[in-house]
Amino acid sequence: MRAAIRRGPTIVCEEIEEQPLSTGQVRVKTLACGICGSDLHAVHHLDRMVELGKRAGGGMGLDPAKDVVFGHEFSAEILEHGPGTQKTLKAGTRVVTVPAAINPAGGMELIGYSNLYPGGYSERMILTEAMLLEVPNGLSSEAAAMTEPFAVGAHAVAKAHLEPGSACLVVGCGPVGLAVIAALKARGHGPVIAADFSPTRRRAAEVLGADVIVDPATESPHTHWGAYGVPATLMEAQLARMMGRAVARPIVFECVGAPNVLQSLIEGAPPGAQIVVAGVCMEADRIEPSLAINKELELTFVFGYSPEEFARTLHDIAEGRIDAMAIVTSRVGLAETPAAFARLARPDADVKIVVEPWR
Amino acid sequence: MRAAIRRGPTIVCEEIEEQPLSTGQVRVKTLACGICGSDLHAVHHLDRMVELGKRAGGGMGLDPAKDVVFGHEFSAEILEHGPGTQKTLKAGTRVVTVPAAINPAGGMELIGYSNLYPGGYSERMILTEAMLLEVPNGLSSEAAAMTEPFAVGAHAVAKAHLEPGSACLVVGCGPVGLAVIAALKARGHGPVIAADFSPTRRRAAEVLGADVIVDPATESPHTHWGAYGVPATLMEAQLARMMGRAVARPIVFECVGAPNVLQSLIEGAPPGAQIVVAGVCMEADRIEPSLAINKELELTFVFGYSPEEFARTLHDIAEGRIDAMAIVTSRVGLAETPAAFARLARPDADVKIVVEPWR
Repeated sequence: MRAAIRRGPTIVCEEIEEQPLSTGQVRVKTLACGICGSDLHAVHHLDRMVELGKRAGGGMGLDPAKDVVFGHEFSAEILEHGPGTQKTLKAGTRVVTVPAAINPAGGMELIGYSNLYPGGYSERMILTEAMLLEVPNGLSSEAAAMTEPFAVGAHAVAKAHLEPGSACLVVGCGPVGLAVIAALKARGHGPVIAADFSPTRRRAAEVLGADVIVDPATESPHTHWGAYGVPATLMEAQLARMMGRAVARPIVFECVGAPNVLQSLIEGAPPGAQIVVAGVCMEADRIEPSLAINKELELTFVFGYSPEEFARTLHDIAEGRIDAMAIVTSRVGLAETPAAFARLARPDADVKIVVEPWR
Repeated sequence: MRAAIRRGPTIVCEEIEEQPLSTGQVRVKTLACGICGSDLHAVHHLDRMVELGKRAGGGMGLDPAKDVVFGHEFSAEILEHGPGTQKTLKAGTRVVTVPAAINPAGGMELIGYSNLYPGGYSERMILTEAMLLEVPNGLSSEAAAMTEPFAVGAHAVAKAHLEPGSACLVVGCGPVGLAVIAALKARGHGPVIAADFSPTRRRAAEVLGADVIVDPATESPHTHWGAYGVPATLMEAQLARMMGRAVARPIVFECVGAPNVLQSLIEGAPPGAQIVVAGVCMEADRIEPSLAINKELELTFVFGYSPEEFARTLHDIAEGRIDAMAIVTSRVGLAETPAAFARLARPDADVKIVVEPWR
């Protein structure tokens, strides 16, 4: 079958061998697979990502020197059931899944970051039957594939210490920031201030329900806290407390993941704010802890999602609480995948490109 | 009256003028006043502290170029009531207070960091009657003066997202770390692992009830998590969750406040840990956000305490739940205060030195 393969720091489109199914596995046809920012990063820095996972005491057991087929934001159609499967979902059923699988040795593989199992930038994949979720009738395969990136937002919001009426600022409206906006709105939180330099992304933020949209090139997003009664300074916060005026905790979502963003948020955030760090800055970064102490900030680093958050996100999309298609800006076949990676390096051209390997 | 005055980067012992009492104020005799680590820092870096407070939108309205009498960890005895006072507490009553006062212009002054009101390194102070708390009968004046530093620990513990059985690691057993240990034990939390390079400070940690005492020169404190069932790696944490084994959230208290400590804790802390940052690192610092993200750490920066935490700490000390005297290692008069500052720069010589200006 054909696949877009990560080989060294490039993506090449070639034929690959298919493997036999092991116990509990199903073979599926990939219907749609989103290109994730971490894939863009991994093309060039897979070594560093693997090393980092090891230092955190977990991570991917993959060899960056070998071929990998990326793609972990997918929907698929069941083709064939392997040995020892339940067959509750028949061939032809459309499915999504948390992109993880058990390998024959009993270890965990991340689909899309595995030397063993190809990810969604291939015509067919091998998935674990027990982990499959059926795509609800009527939901498009592209929208279903967006369950994974939107689950990242659901998890970030679940980790936020939101109070009724907490004003939220989402910094960076790439797929992660947009997923956070969608999850906040799906759960009835807000007001939501959204900031991004890109007009394309600001438009998507608006579609997903952000209340205030800011171009940081023209104004600081932090000028908007006051409109929601959030004290901008320690003095104002103390005064509000002395006057018995309860202020819901302000929440900032860092969804950029670049050096210096954290420090700029420590400088700009209101006192007492929680900064939920969902953007992955892969470089070492510089912060001023004494400023964070003076303002009593909380930095909550978040990663991934739980199977429950993933399943709930699928239903939020299927039942219209999240407009998943608001982030999809282009569709490509496997042959165009290398070019799509290059295009995503420019933040204004696209938000989410979906690969359709059957094209 | 005599006072130990901060003038430029030195402490000098001289006579200063006494001021008349304004409405609602009382004049007190200073009985005991602890030397705080922030005073040691402020002798040399008061400009930077003032600037930092301003950048946080609060801070001290003081001019570092003018004389300041430091000292904010005090107990005192009422000498004289000013105009418009209630006189509920008679002359001769021993008192403590949150070191803050309202100036005649209606603004807030921090006693011990004010050009207007001398702090506790002086024979007499001017305090606000409405803020005074009576020292319970039988509690020594020195122990009462320790209310302030122990309140810092109470606040840090109040900001920790402790779960029943949460294992706690206190890194650095200076006065802040020791106050954290005392507050954890006073509230029935633990187990508490305490780490410090200094034998003097490790001994104090033991007296205050730490369960495991570690010399980081001989072993990493992080080797002790396993004994309390805390998974050391992401893999182990996932496995524990899959086996339905609930693990109480591990909490790390950063009580050192020096560059690189935060990054070493990000590297060493178990996945899912909260790091409560109570040590004040005044320099910019380097962290690896991607490692904190992989481990889903939470960095909670804390500062000061509330009036309620202060009052509760006084009662914890008076009722024997906190052995405040465990941290007091020396007593000096005003003339010896400059030498005491120099001695505290060596962490092994002392933990807390108390100034007794009446000596």
